[in-house]
Amino acid sequence: MEPLRVMGVDTSLRSTGIGILDAVGSVMRPVYYGLIKNARDVPLSACLAHLRAEIESLVTQYTPAAVAIESVFYGKNVKTMLLLAHARGTVIAQCATLAIPVYQYEPRRVKQAVVGFGGAEKIQVQCMIRSLLALDTEPPDDAADALALAITHLHCHTGIAALSDQPI
Amino acid sequence: MEPLRVMGVDTSLRSTGIGILDAVGSVMRPVYYGLIKNARDVPLSACLAHLRAEIESLVTQYTPAAVAIESVFYGKNVKTMLLLAHARGTVIAQCATLAIPVYQYEPRRVKQAVVGFGGAEKIQVQCMIRSLLALDTEPPDDAADALALAITHLHCHTGIAALSDQPI
Repeated sequence: MEPLRVMGVDTSLRSTGIGILDAVGSVMRPVYYGLIKNARDVPLSACLAHLRAEIESLVTQYTPAAVAIESVFYGKNVKTMLLLAHARGTVIAQCATLAIPVYQYEPRRVKQAVVGFGGAEKIQVQCMIRSLLALDTEPPDDAADALALAITHLHCHTGIAALSDQPI
Repeated sequence: MEPLRVMGVDTSLRSTGIGILDAVGSVMRPVYYGLIKNARDVPLSACLAHLRAEIESLVTQYTPAAVAIESVFYGKNVKTMLLLAHARGTVIAQCATLAIPVYQYEPRRVKQAVVGFGGAEKIQVQCMIRSLLALDTEPPDDAADALALAITHLHCHTGIAALSDQPI
């Protein structure tokens, strides 16, 4: 049975988490995880160009069947929210350019899938990711969130509980 | 004297205006203007991929020295604002990937540059654009806004009134 490969992307301007998993049935294997970083003093345009290039490179190298991202978060800080939307648009545009479908999941649903309840803390997500994927150490929290997104996608699209979510 | 070529982009998800001008001193010549359209039923990812591809194609074809866009608009409709930020991020990332500097201008400054006062109506901008560039007809309003952005950039970066704006 060919594994299903999913890439989770926890998008942000300064530290985007990446987590790629292979799944055969209910068995998941981590393929890659890490961060796309932009230093604080890098201008917006250079951050977005770097993010775009890294996404292109990762998708081309690992050829996931789908990408999972967080749904838009309506936070109270409008400026942060808008910067995040710039990064999110860049990621979605690049994945769509490479013909990879993008699915979005609400943070609560991701926590529910990984920890078992929607109000879980970041540290609980990290801890569960380490345990579920049998990692030697806990991944950085943005990478753990990306792996959690990939797991959520697999939960929703494989097995008898598969939902009819559409890509965005 | 080599003309200075500037591309204005009035970004949106469904109808992005494009306006490209050549300037030699204070003489401006329209090179291209038009719209990048996405139909209402096209999903977000396909809209962004189309926008990205069209920006890449226009920048590659016309090789502007700079791109001018509107600064972030803090509107009351958060959903619209966030969708616009996705499109804006896509445009900025693509221009930066092609090493074209991107400058942003507030809507009031654009109207001031073109019509003479910051509270001007859309129709006044269209009318002035037609007159300033000696066009046979008024361009579509999104394209007029893009040409107005290009004019604003030229006002701010040529002649004795040149300002020290930095690209974003």
